[in-house]
Amino acid sequence: MKQMNVMRATLGRLPVYLEYLKSLDLSVNENISATIIAKALGLGEVQVRKDLSAVSGAGRPKLGYKTKALIKRLEDVLGRKKVTKAVIVGAGKLGKALYAYGGFGNYGLEVAAAFDSNSEITGAADFGKEVLPLSKLEEYCIENGVKIGIITVPAHAAQDICNRMTSCGITAIWNFAPCQLCVPEGITLQNENLALSLAHLKLQMDCQ
Amino acid sequence: MKQMNVMRATLGRLPVYLEYLKSLDLSVNENISATIIAKALGLGEVQVRKDLSAVSGAGRPKLGYKTKALIKRLEDVLGRKKVTKAVIVGAGKLGKALYAYGGFGNYGLEVAAAFDSNSEITGAADFGKEVLPLSKLEEYCIENGVKIGIITVPAHAAQDICNRMTSCGITAIWNFAPCQLCVPEGITLQNENLALSLAHLKLQMDCQ
Repeated sequence: MKQMNVMRATLGRLPVYLEYLKSLDLSVNENISATIIAKALGLGEVQVRKDLSAVSGAGRPKLGYKTKALIKRLEDVLGRKKVTKAVIVGAGKLGKALYAYGGFGNYGLEVAAAFDSNSEITGAADFGKEVLPLSKLEEYCIENGVKIGIITVPAHAAQDICNRMTSCGITAIWNFAPCQLCVPEGITLQNENLALSLAHLKLQMDCQ
Repeated sequence: MKQMNVMRATLGRLPVYLEYLKSLDLSVNENISATIIAKALGLGEVQVRKDLSAVSGAGRPKLGYKTKALIKRLEDVLGRKKVTKAVIVGAGKLGKALYAYGGFGNYGLEVAAAFDSNSEITGAADFGKEVLPLSKLEEYCIENGVKIGIITVPAHAAQDICNRMTSCGITAIWNFAPCQLCVPEGITLQNENLALSLAHLKLQMDCQ
């Protein structure tokens, strides 16, 4: 992949560039310069150049970017044409909130299913999406080519769920459980500690 | 404040140090060295020294730290003796999940109240904590000395809530709404974009 250098902040702006470019009339905007994009979006020109060069190389002098090609490239990087499926294990309050969250589509992501071991939770479809029994996890992931697993179970259950996820084709784990997980080589692990985020904000506040 | 240099990763380890130190018998562990702490917790010695020096200065040669003083310092930095109150506005799925979340106490934080403009949500106490009507926000924050506001409303309503929060003594905002907020000088703003976090994980996975 050529996406190694896309920083998180850049990634956050890509949907904004894409939306703007798609709003243009391509018959009169065959080419587009970083200057024009920066002006239209109220961003710095240097930043726009840097962001776009991370995904698409430099624009051509005087001409800028080919608009259509840039749109295609942004759609590719953002996975708009090929949705990546994720599943959640642990349909408590946080799991359900993430399951119901609508913002993942912007980045070519879909939380396709949620699983829980509690039979009182499974089946419940209070926002139009069903929670499946945990016993179906492996079958579902293999059948649907799921690549991302989101863990929102209590800490003591997280490693077991993590092992089950990586055993059925999942290659990236987003862990909300407050514990350290061991993953096999080649598996991407990202820990999300909401308490720590809030604590960090407090510390910044204290320093003001 | 002397806490300017505490990095997020260090902050995440402080509760671990504190828990370990508090488990010691202080009558036989009047002093403690970074070496012993590192061994007990399976951490690198250099890391432990760096973490502790960020909050408490260097240990004394041969002797290490005074255990009791180090415990006190960690408790201070983590705000254990003086809880900082936060409120949530927007008691949808995510707001409720954060409201019910138990992990903030480790960092001296308490989500003391949640507010919503929807009268069907207010009053509901399905996990023992009540959701208050939005009209009570300012009064509550002033009376309770609330310093942190958590925004989990839709994007279009976020700026108005942010303005109301900063008007009643809140000095730090944790924003989950997918939009840019303007805050007065001196107010700390931290944006949390869950979709972007997942997208970032996917990008890392694609690069493996």
